[in-house]
Amino acid sequence: MVFKKMHGTGNDFIVIKYEDFPFEERFKELAQKTCHRHFGIGADGLLIVNKSNIADFKMQYYNSDGSLAAMCGNGIRCFAKFVYDEGLINKSLFTVETLSGVKKVSLNIDDDKTKSVKVNMGEVIFEPSKIPVTSEKASFINETIMVNDRNFTVTTVLMGVPHTVIFTDTLNLEEIKAYGPLIEKHDIYPANTNVSFAKIRDEGNIEVRTWERGAGYTLACGTGVSSVVGVAYRLGLVDNKVNINTEGGNIKIEVMEDDSVFMDGPAQDICSGVYFI
Amino acid sequence: MVFKKMHGTGNDFIVIKYEDFPFEERFKELAQKTCHRHFGIGADGLLIVNKSNIADFKMQYYNSDGSLAAMCGNGIRCFAKFVYDEGLINKSLFTVETLSGVKKVSLNIDDDKTKSVKVNMGEVIFEPSKIPVTSEKASFINETIMVNDRNFTVTTVLMGVPHTVIFTDTLNLEEIKAYGPLIEKHDIYPANTNVSFAKIRDEGNIEVRTWERGAGYTLACGTGVSSVVGVAYRLGLVDNKVNINTEGGNIKIEVMEDDSVFMDGPAQDICSGVYFI
Repeated sequence: MVFKKMHGTGNDFIVIKYEDFPFEERFKELAQKTCHRHFGIGADGLLIVNKSNIADFKMQYYNSDGSLAAMCGNGIRCFAKFVYDEGLINKSLFTVETLSGVKKVSLNIDDDKTKSVKVNMGEVIFEPSKIPVTSEKASFINETIMVNDRNFTVTTVLMGVPHTVIFTDTLNLEEIKAYGPLIEKHDIYPANTNVSFAKIRDEGNIEVRTWERGAGYTLACGTGVSSVVGVAYRLGLVDNKVNINTEGGNIKIEVMEDDSVFMDGPAQDICSGVYFI
Repeated sequence: MVFKKMHGTGNDFIVIKYEDFPFEERFKELAQKTCHRHFGIGADGLLIVNKSNIADFKMQYYNSDGSLAAMCGNGIRCFAKFVYDEGLINKSLFTVETLSGVKKVSLNIDDDKTKSVKVNMGEVIFEPSKIPVTSEKASFINETIMVNDRNFTVTTVLMGVPHTVIFTDTLNLEEIKAYGPLIEKHDIYPANTNVSFAKIRDEGNIEVRTWERGAGYTLACGTGVSSVVGVAYRLGLVDNKVNINTEGGNIKIEVMEDDSVFMDGPAQDICSGVYFI
C-alpha cells in the first residue's frame, strides 16, 4: 500500500488515498498497525483522502490507537498539502469535508509545493451539551474540577473535538503527562476530552502543550491551539492575533469578529513509499 | 534517498545502501534526523550497507541519538535479510564486518524471502579492561554497585558492546526506565553500558527487558539477550539452549562449548520508500 508520511509542527501522519486501501471496515486496524512506532511506519495518526459529495475532498482521520476523530488541525494542513502536491487538485483554495463540518483551506505555495496552510477552523463552541460536558450551566468557563489530589481551573469547548484549556504559569511536562490522561477521561466528559496547558507570555504570544485524546502527549495540536486562543480571547487575556509556540514549532491563530478561528501553520513531507501489509 | 524500515522483535531500523548516501561524515546527523519519531521516519537506529575488504559486507550502525555502536544483534538480522532479499548476495550463509569483528550469519529462507536469521555473536568477554569496567578484578560478576538510593547486584560483560546484566524476580518497567539511564552512565563504566534486567522462569526460559545505551528503553536487544544467557549459563542458572521472551517477541540463544553465543530470531520488513532530505 502506497503512503506518505508528513508532519505539521511535529504532529506526524501517515497519509493514504482511499483507492489504495478501499476497506473502510479495516481503517481502525490499519491506523493501529501503520502508526505503531516500532512494528509500523510510526505516526500520531492516519489520514485517508476520500471523495466527497459536499466538498472538494473528504478527510477521514484515525488516531494511532484506532479511534476515529472528527477533526485534526495539524492533520488537515498535511491533508491539504498532500492533495495539492500530489496533483489531485489544481487550486490553492478548496474545501475539505470532516466529521465536524466542511473546512476551507488556503495554501501558501512556492515553486509548486505547499509551504503552509491556513484553515478556517470554524467557531469555538461553548455550550456544554454540544461539547459534551456534563453540566447544567450555559458554558463551562473557569470551572474547578478535582483530579485525584489536585484541583484544576478549566474551560472546556468544542473545536471540532472536545478541548479542555488550563492556563498555567509553568508548563511542567511530567505534570501534563500525569494529569492529562486523568482529565481526558474525567467523569464529566462523556466523550473524553483533549487537554491543553497554556502559558500566556503576553497579549500576542502563548506557549501550549497538549495531551491528546486517543494519542497521548504530542508535539503540537492544531485544534488545541485554536481552542486555547478562542478561550483566551473570550476571557480578554490576548489580542485576536496570537503566535503560538508548541514543542513542534509555531502556529498563528486569528479570531474573527464572528468568533470563527483561523489557523495558519506549516506542513512538511518526511517520506513516501510502500507499506508491506 | 531510498530506504527500507525493518524490525527484529520490535527493535526497528532504517536500512540504506552506502551508495545512496555516500557521505560518512554526515551519518551521525542522518541517523538523528531519519530516526526521529515525529520529524523523521522514526526508528531505534540507522543501518548502512557498505562494502568490506574482509567480509561479504560491512555493517555500520548508528543509534537514534547519532552515536556509533560497534554491534547490534537485532540490527544484524535485519541487515542480513536486507542484503539477501534485495539480491545483493545469492547465498544464505555469509559474513558481515562490524566494529566488533566479522560475524557469520545463516539465513532461514522461505519462498526466496528471509524469515529468520541465526548469528554467531562471538564470545561473551568477562575481562573488565576489555568491556570496559573500572575494576581491578579478573571479572565483574555479581558485584554490588550503588545507584542513588539503591544497591544493584550486577554482572558486566562485553558482547560487541558493554552489557550489564541484573537478575531480578520482578520486571518493573518504571524501575527499569528510572535506573536504566543511571546505570548506563555510572562512573565505573568509562564507555557507558547497556543494561538488561532478566527474570529466569526456568532453565530454558528467560524474560528480558533492556535499557540501551544511546537509544533508551527498546522492545528487545539482541546483544542484550545474548549477554544475559552468556552470564546465566556461566553462573549455572540455565541450560545452554534458552528461549528468550522480550516485549517485542522471542529469540533463541545457544551457548557453545567454546563460549561463543548463537542468536536465532526474526527479521521483518515494514516499509520501503524515499526519504526527503
